[in-house]
Amino acid sequence: MPNYTAYAAMTLDGKIAREEQEFVDWTSKEDADHYQASLKKHDVIIVGNNTYQTAIENLSRRNCIVLTRRVTSPERENERLVWFNAEHDDLDAYVREQGYVGPAIIGGSKVYAALFGLIDHLYLTIEPLVFGSGIPLTDGRQIGTAMKLASLKQLNEQGTLLLHYVKAEKKDIP
Amino acid sequence: MPNYTAYAAMTLDGKIAREEQEFVDWTSKEDADHYQASLKKHDVIIVGNNTYQTAIENLSRRNCIVLTRRVTSPERENERLVWFNAEHDDLDAYVREQGYVGPAIIGGSKVYAALFGLIDHLYLTIEPLVFGSGIPLTDGRQIGTAMKLASLKQLNEQGTLLLHYVKAEKKDIP
Repeated sequence: MPNYTAYAAMTLDGKIAREEQEFVDWTSKEDADHYQASLKKHDVIIVGNNTYQTAIENLSRRNCIVLTRRVTSPERENERLVWFNAEHDDLDAYVREQGYVGPAIIGGSKVYAALFGLIDHLYLTIEPLVFGSGIPLTDGRQIGTAMKLASLKQLNEQGTLLLHYVKAEKKDIP
Repeated sequence: MPNYTAYAAMTLDGKIAREEQEFVDWTSKEDADHYQASLKKHDVIIVGNNTYQTAIENLSRRNCIVLTRRVTSPERENERLVWFNAEHDDLDAYVREQGYVGPAIIGGSKVYAALFGLIDHLYLTIEPLVFGSGIPLTDGRQIGTAMKLASLKQLNEQGTLLLHYVKAEKKDIP
């Protein structure tokens, strides 16, 4: 059974970018190092097309399932890249079919929101910055999932935090 | 000089409510206790009208400056409550004039965003929940403030975190 891990970095006011398709250059070096080292542990990356385009140089070297509405069934672009419409096909079934065991989900907002139900582990970095306005971590239908904090680590002196959450036992949230 | 402290509780995806004017009943008991105990330390509460209305029973017992566009100059409703238009008048000047030394800023989104520049201390509670959609911690113009983590505390077993941030030395953020 595949084990889904999501990675996200946000400001303390819950923003992952100032605007759509912004290249992430505002996170700390410590977070960038953690993120790049972590991605190597996964056999496939699941990513929305906007996010993919902002990091294409890096991501084109990895197996990627890129979510887009432009296809109606999975379309393989090359050895590494598949376009996939998660509203049309069952992503989890596809991941199993392909034999992937450790997918990483790396956003953006709509992807985190749409796939939250699948996530077993979430590594959430909180940078001690405030954007005020911008793109939220999640943007989608209401979810109402409870997680549990498994561990936390302060990455630097300003106070960048790396929080590791795991799916909580199913329970109603108030 | 007044020392401004903001309090906020959000889900791990940065939401302070599922919808406008929702009464906050989804935070942990530990956070609710911390919040109620903390408010008592402040000589005045600065709050947006929507948030004020959701907690009026509790807040009507305290000195409140309630932000609203419905007035053009400060209007005193009673001994405790003043209506104030922060787009029209200088809130910090008013606070000083009134002799308040420790205002608490308690939201919502637009108030946090509009007043972030004033905040010396921020106590941010992160509940291990995901709402997916909802009201963000900040909603306003772009800010770009750097803070510094002063301390953190885990409040319960699920992993509710209480983060204490202070204003960072002025510096450009990337």
